[in-house]
Amino acid sequence: SMDGAPPPASPAGLSAFVAVSQLLGLTLLATTGAWLGRYRGGVAWHSPLQFNAHPLCMVLGMVFLQGDALLVYRVFRHEAKRSTKALHALLHGLALVIALVGIIAVFESHRAKGIPDMYSLHSWCGMAAFVLYLLQWLLGCGFFLFPGASFSLRGRYKPQHIFFGVAIFILSIASCLLGITEMLLFKISDSYSHFVPEGVLANTLGVMLVAFGLVVGYVVTREEWKRPPLAEELALSMDFKTLTEGESPGGGS
Amino acid sequence: SMDGAPPPASPAGLSAFVAVSQLLGLTLLATTGAWLGRYRGGVAWHSPLQFNAHPLCMVLGMVFLQGDALLVYRVFRHEAKRSTKALHALLHGLALVIALVGIIAVFESHRAKGIPDMYSLHSWCGMAAFVLYLLQWLLGCGFFLFPGASFSLRGRYKPQHIFFGVAIFILSIASCLLGITEMLLFKISDSYSHFVPEGVLANTLGVMLVAFGLVVGYVVTREEWKRPPLAEELALSMDFKTLTEGESPGGGS
Repeated sequence: SMDGAPPPASPAGLSAFVAVSQLLGLTLLATTGAWLGRYRGGVAWHSPLQFNAHPLCMVLGMVFLQGDALLVYRVFRHEAKRSTKALHALLHGLALVIALVGIIAVFESHRAKGIPDMYSLHSWCGMAAFVLYLLQWLLGCGFFLFPGASFSLRGRYKPQHIFFGVAIFILSIASCLLGITEMLLFKISDSYSHFVPEGVLANTLGVMLVAFGLVVGYVVTREEWKRPPLAEELALSMDFKTLTEGESPGGGS
Repeated sequence: SMDGAPPPASPAGLSAFVAVSQLLGLTLLATTGAWLGRYRGGVAWHSPLQFNAHPLCMVLGMVFLQGDALLVYRVFRHEAKRSTKALHALLHGLALVIALVGIIAVFESHRAKGIPDMYSLHSWCGMAAFVLYLLQWLLGCGFFLFPGASFSLRGRYKPQHIFFGVAIFILSIASCLLGITEMLLFKISDSYSHFVPEGVLANTLGVMLVAFGLVVGYVVTREEWKRPPLAEELALSMDFKTLTEGESPGGGS
């Protein structure tokens, strides 16, 4: 709204859902911090506490920031597409860097303690989520951010990008749930079944991770909340269409 | 096609994806059976092996049958809506009954061994998935199968039914992954990190559960593969619309 007109309002339900998602996201981080601080000795890098950087980084990067990056097109629905797209890529990039730090933390802590890597279902799912996330980010930059890809190629890739984006987000959350279960069975296997506070707190963290995924998933898949194209984007796409159709008058191949 | 005309073809990609989903689904069941039979002593009801009925029933009911029930509208895309709907409800009903048997198995086996119930994240997520699944089934029958609900009410509930249907399916798969991790850490915690065959087999089962969810999720969310309304359904919906609009000429409330 560079012309000074009041910005168009977002649908009321959308704003409420986004607010709930952000409250849930911050509570996720606080709960992870509380678990590690209160029951697991806190977080530090060059120390036996290095492992604890892993859950914190993964919840921050692979869940909270990844989820917020998915929400960008709904939250900034009336901003220029170019800046929204840049923010989407930037948040995912930041999430990837933080997740990488979290992965280094667990590998280094395994080496220090002589624990083998990559044997558990948690590590398989988590690593798959991270590698697919990195690939998806590279493909996304290649198709949508750099000017090389044609208009029709972008249009054909876009539904795949959206499907795999949501799928990777879900797999990331599932990997966190597996990590919580592993950590509880490694650390408090004797008392977990007696409903000790640490177990209940960590279970609650799991439930909140599911709730965050549900709310973000609802917002990004709801048809009425999709980002409406701006007037200038519609005009531009018409121009492209005319150009393309002008190049191949048969309308085919 | 009662008139003897050849039935309209399904999109080629759709048939391939459905075939892969069914192969994956059957492999899931075989792998679960192989794990329990080869490494866990097999499955029996009135015996210490009663617990083993739990994973088998949950993979069969909450994953394979629930997934196939979601696929019904894509597979039988040119059949009458009424029979497709009945099959959708029937498969979900069967899945619920089998899941209930699986839940009884774990509660009875806990009682026999003096293990507390419902303390783990797996039990919280799994029970939430089952209860939400039952509610969703009851709501689905109430809105879509019995004649009470109005045309516009059905239209408003349908997107919610679809979103929560997919969400419950995903939560069911996540609960299975948590169950696999729990069972491995209970049974082979000492050898799991040495890549013993049982651990690798169970991890592979987890990866196949994720793959099944991905393929089913792709088929049911892909826009081009949505079930096209039959000619008589379009005519019927026009009639209803005309009737409804005729009743409230103001067009509002």
